[in-house]
Amino acid sequence: MGAHPGYPDVMGFGRREMQLTSEEAKNYIIYQVSALLGFVKIFGLSLQHVKPHGAMYNKALKDRGLSRAIAEAVVELNPSLIVFAPPKSRMAEAAANAGLRVAFEFFADRAYNSDGSLVSRKKAGSIIEEPDKIVRRAIRAIKEGVVEAFDGGVVELGQVHTICIHGDTPKAVKLAEALKKGLIKAGIEIKSVSQFI
Amino acid sequence: MGAHPGYPDVMGFGRREMQLTSEEAKNYIIYQVSALLGFVKIFGLSLQHVKPHGAMYNKALKDRGLSRAIAEAVVELNPSLIVFAPPKSRMAEAAANAGLRVAFEFFADRAYNSDGSLVSRKKAGSIIEEPDKIVRRAIRAIKEGVVEAFDGGVVELGQVHTICIHGDTPKAVKLAEALKKGLIKAGIEIKSVSQFI
Amino acid sequence: MGAHPGYPDVMGFGRREMQLTSEEAKNYIIYQVSALLGFVKIFGLSLQHVKPHGAMYNKALKDRGLSRAIAEAVVELNPSLIVFAPPKSRMAEAAANAGLRVAFEFFADRAYNSDGSLVSRKKAGSIIEEPDKIVRRAIRAIKEGVVEAFDGGVVELGQVHTICIHGDTPKAVKLAEALKKGLIKAGIEIKSVSQFI
Amino acid sequence: MGAHPGYPDVMGFGRREMQLTSEEAKNYIIYQVSALLGFVKIFGLSLQHVKPHGAMYNKALKDRGLSRAIAEAVVELNPSLIVFAPPKSRMAEAAANAGLRVAFEFFADRAYNSDGSLVSRKKAGSIIEEPDKIVRRAIRAIKEGVVEAFDGGVVELGQVHTICIHGDTPKAVKLAEALKKGLIKAGIEIKSVSQFI
Repeated sequence: MGAHPGYPDVMGFGRREMQLTSEEAKNYIIYQVSALLGFVKIFGLSLQHVKPHGAMYNKALKDRGLSRAIAEAVVELNPSLIVFAPPKSRMAEAAANAGLRVAFEFFADRAYNSDGSLVSRKKAGSIIEEPDKIVRRAIRAIKEGVVEAFDGGVVELGQVHTICIHGDTPKAVKLAEALKKGLIKAGIEIKSVSQFI
Repeated sequence: MGAHPGYPDVMGFGRREMQLTSEEAKNYIIYQVSALLGFVKIFGLSLQHVKPHGAMYNKALKDRGLSRAIAEAVVELNPSLIVFAPPKSRMAEAAANAGLRVAFEFFADRAYNSDGSLVSRKKAGSIIEEPDKIVRRAIRAIKEGVVEAFDGGVVELGQVHTICIHGDTPKAVKLAEALKKGLIKAGIEIKSVSQFI
Repeated sequence: MGAHPGYPDVMGFGRREMQLTSEEAKNYIIYQVSALLGFVKIFGLSLQHVKPHGAMYNKALKDRGLSRAIAEAVVELNPSLIVFAPPKSRMAEAAANAGLRVAFEFFADRAYNSDGSLVSRKKAGSIIEEPDKIVRRAIRAIKEGVVEAFDGGVVELGQVHTICIHGDTPKAVKLAEALKKGLIKAGIEIKSVSQFI
Repeated sequence: MGAHPGYPDVMGFGRREMQLTSEEAKNYIIYQVSALLGFVKIFGLSLQHVKPHGAMYNKALKDRGLSRAIAEAVVELNPSLIVFAPPKSRMAEAAANAGLRVAFEFFADRAYNSDGSLVSRKKAGSIIEEPDKIVRRAIRAIKEGVVEAFDGGVVELGQVHTICIHGDTPKAVKLAEALKKGLIKAGIEIKSVSQFI
């Protein structure tokens, strides 16, 4: 179980950047993660990680103030929560500085710019839906720590702990199944991040 | 500290009844109370009670399904929470049946119908703003367990544990100060409900 | 082009009844229809009709105050707009009393109770998805003015001018195609309601 | 009567910037202004102007894409509408380019930076509430086309046609009364902008 908090822009599905103060951002994280925590506890489960959603995730990659606000919220809620973030991002840095464990994330279904950022959803080719390509990219990311860039060349990712398939891609479930199968076939063991981070 | 959850109708300030299923109502209570709980914990405080807000409070007085859904949500979140409800209401009954402690509530700033319900805010005279009148009503409710009805006669309240002054009445703070002073002067001790329920 | 205004409950998709005053209901209709009118005009189109949505539609069938509020809003916006409503409903009555034209509506994809109301979406069998059944029901409604009731027997509909297929049924487009084909095959001419109401 | 459309961020009162596409911004303007137009017409009034609100106003001052999107929406709705914007802003430029009349606006109750932008509401001294100071600033803006900057020096405004007093300043009505009185006393005639733009 993980929480996926974001900007309070339901109409835009949290995919439009909003200029929040650090305090506002922190409070929204606390609000949303806490609301989920209630259900998690009632169902006898526990929360493993927090991953900011959509435009908040993208902004936190580069924004020191926002990533720090998110990390503060998570630490104050529960310092044993893991934060999902790309390696080398401000978000990963802020979470580590706050004493949180970080799981480095790779996006198997999104094209990468050569600077390591994701290609905008508005560009053709930014979303990858071919199962074979997704499996190939994931294996390479895990074993070699790199991914091919959208505009040629290779992006150095470093270590990868978790792989994202977006749930709103129509084929998401099939892609996840293909990915699981492909990783196991390649000799990669699949575990909950809390078991090895 | 208490939570004051209600219908998800921000524009109507939760003061318009909505036809929710019991499951929807229960989930909204869990969501809203849990979101508050996050802040309460971060600030080193604890939550004492839950009181449904506005139209949800009014409906829960008479509606067995809704009051049970609210009580279930509170019990599952934390069975040591106290529920605020009028004496003899479905809400008080459902909370007691669920094993929750109930604090009986009196509305010092609202007129009562002879059946014990509150006079609609749409009627002139439904909101009481004179400090003297509020103090007099509160003392009588506490000492005698009754309040004068809007249309004459007297409403039997039974025991009263907590008194509501609505925070959106412009003079709310002054009314609360007058009430506190008046109660103390009348020899009534003021305590947190968790100390005597 | 038609407007489909409803309760301001986006999360519940307008399918949960809300207790609004007549003035609130009237204002929401004006707000929503006017907002659409701006786009309609900019695209060089015109608005033909107004049909209340979801829980507001269902409530307006039986509620004199709500149906009158809706009719007033439509008349004040543009008295040449047509209102969609079931025959014999309060909504049809209020629209006619306000001097509006009414198109009688039949729900081809929803089961009917014997009193002419729709079977609740929460009951199994309330939504009809078989193209053949939908076509057969529609032809009978148009030619004979009746529909079989969910619990046996026949509902007298009277004249039917327009047929609803819900857009959020996954097969909606295919059902509409089948319906069009079936009606034409049965010798029924399909026209815009503004041409014959 | 004027429309005051802004970002769809009710919780933040439209005072937090959102990253919208030009198409989204244009559609929100059409939606909000059209919704208001319905009420304006029903009450037998007419709409004189459009002034973007809050963070959208501030962004449109400098952003060519956003100001053009706003101007397009207004022109398509009604090319005889007047746009309120500061002189020399991108918003004034885009409105003029679209063939719209522009009323140059002065903020009597807000401090100016030396580059002509408003001092952030988060800084002490950014909001001016002394009636005398407001009147003095307004007279100088109208007669001399300048205002003193927050950090010293003078900002060249050029011609000023309309003066803003923010409605959410607690003393807004009193400030507006003082301003009207002060302007008349200084021999300045007050007219609806549609009479002289």
